[in-house]
Amino acid sequence: MAELHVRSVLVTGANRGIGLGLVKHFLQFRNPPERIFAACRDPKGEKAQELQQLASKHPSLVIIQLEVTDPTSIQAAAASVTEHLKGSGLNLLINNAGIVKWNSLDTETREEMSAVYDSNTIGPLLVSQAFLPLLKKAAQGSPTSELSCSRAAIINMSSSAGSVEEVYLWDLGQIISYRCSKAALNMLTKCQSLGYREHGILCAALHPGWVQTDMGTSSGLKPPLTMDVSVQGMLKVLCSLSEKDTGTFLNWEGKVVPW
Amino acid sequence: MAELHVRSVLVTGANRGIGLGLVKHFLQFRNPPERIFAACRDPKGEKAQELQQLASKHPSLVIIQLEVTDPTSIQAAAASVTEHLKGSGLNLLINNAGIVKWNSLDTETREEMSAVYDSNTIGPLLVSQAFLPLLKKAAQGSPTSELSCSRAAIINMSSSAGSVEEVYLWDLGQIISYRCSKAALNMLTKCQSLGYREHGILCAALHPGWVQTDMGTSSGLKPPLTMDVSVQGMLKVLCSLSEKDTGTFLNWEGKVVPW
Repeated sequence: MAELHVRSVLVTGANRGIGLGLVKHFLQFRNPPERIFAACRDPKGEKAQELQQLASKHPSLVIIQLEVTDPTSIQAAAASVTEHLKGSGLNLLINNAGIVKWNSLDTETREEMSAVYDSNTIGPLLVSQAFLPLLKKAAQGSPTSELSCSRAAIINMSSSAGSVEEVYLWDLGQIISYRCSKAALNMLTKCQSLGYREHGILCAALHPGWVQTDMGTSSGLKPPLTMDVSVQGMLKVLCSLSEKDTGTFLNWEGKVVPW
Repeated sequence: MAELHVRSVLVTGANRGIGLGLVKHFLQFRNPPERIFAACRDPKGEKAQELQQLASKHPSLVIIQLEVTDPTSIQAAAASVTEHLKGSGLNLLINNAGIVKWNSLDTETREEMSAVYDSNTIGPLLVSQAFLPLLKKAAQGSPTSELSCSRAAIINMSSSAGSVEEVYLWDLGQIISYRCSKAALNMLTKCQSLGYREHGILCAALHPGWVQTDMGTSSGLKPPLTMDVSVQGMLKVLCSLSEKDTGTFLNWEGKVVPW
């Protein structure tokens, strides 16, 4: 399998679930990134212990404090990453942090609609804005003019639950706030692809599948996909993305998901 | 042209633009609704003068105070409409109120993303929740078991600007917050169609076209569609909707808009 070759990558929500899975796989690459920025809300908390242990063994892994709903935290994270990169750009930003609330049409509230949108949609917008100068720098410093994840890319972790066409797993949970936030994230991804193409930045949305993570199992059922299958699949997809794929929505197997 | 026949209808954002256009057309029907509830934020304000003048001439027109971002206001509006209906149900709820903010990817902010989502997406969810008992009552009291706008329906005023496939008028304005809110509203519409089908309520999203309203002209250019063409077209579409159309997204000419 061809391996994604990036000098630097940042993953949000990197202390658990798919975020942590991505970090572990990057560390195991034959040619791992020089810098892997693992961003999470509470780096010193109990839920970041596994990430802390990994960082103590791998000098390329840098843990960054980042609360994606807090513009001040986002600015501080961007400043810290800029310092670590010592003049280099950032190749790959993976907006993975996200939350789910198990509400139905009847029980959904203004507060939870707002909170989920804040994390899952506004967060990726603001984080992308803050890291845009570093992504532009990576694109400009690249020997190629083709779009690719190795050059400069924003990958938004979406879900087929946010596909208006599919309304994936409706019978399992209506999760209105989550579905609306992911449909909006897909729109954001499309807008970013249109706006950032001229800067040499590829933008795409991914559906990781229904994966055996804390979020995946919070439905009360056992999801069909292991973390490894999902993450390996997505990394293969990222490796294959080119010019024609910016602004698309793909699953972990590389299949197009309808909007 | 066949005319939509409803005993009662409620339109949000009814003091201006498309909302006011809809109210005027309902009043001009050969068989007008017995009750037309025109909801707006500030019924006594300067921007509701035309609506006030209409109400003074048409006893069937009832102006209702409604701020769609305020759950208390929504509850009060539902209570007031319930009282006016004296035991009858509400046939048609048109979630038309909405706002736009002219931001780009670079200038978009957390505050404006949140405010636009609150009005354009969360508002229609909460208003639909509050009026659900009246819509259910209308559906139950209907002689037919087929879905239709004459029986019981929720119509969400969306926009092709919220179509991820089309990204309508991108070159005119990136309006990220608006596009994301309308993509999310489309998802809400689909969810409502799945959840409310069993209650006999049809749910659909409409694209009114680019219309000569305050919002339409706030771009600085003159939109191609007059209010009359858009509103007459949409009323014809509403009249034609049946079982197969619940959960769809149609424009003012009845053409399917891709998600």
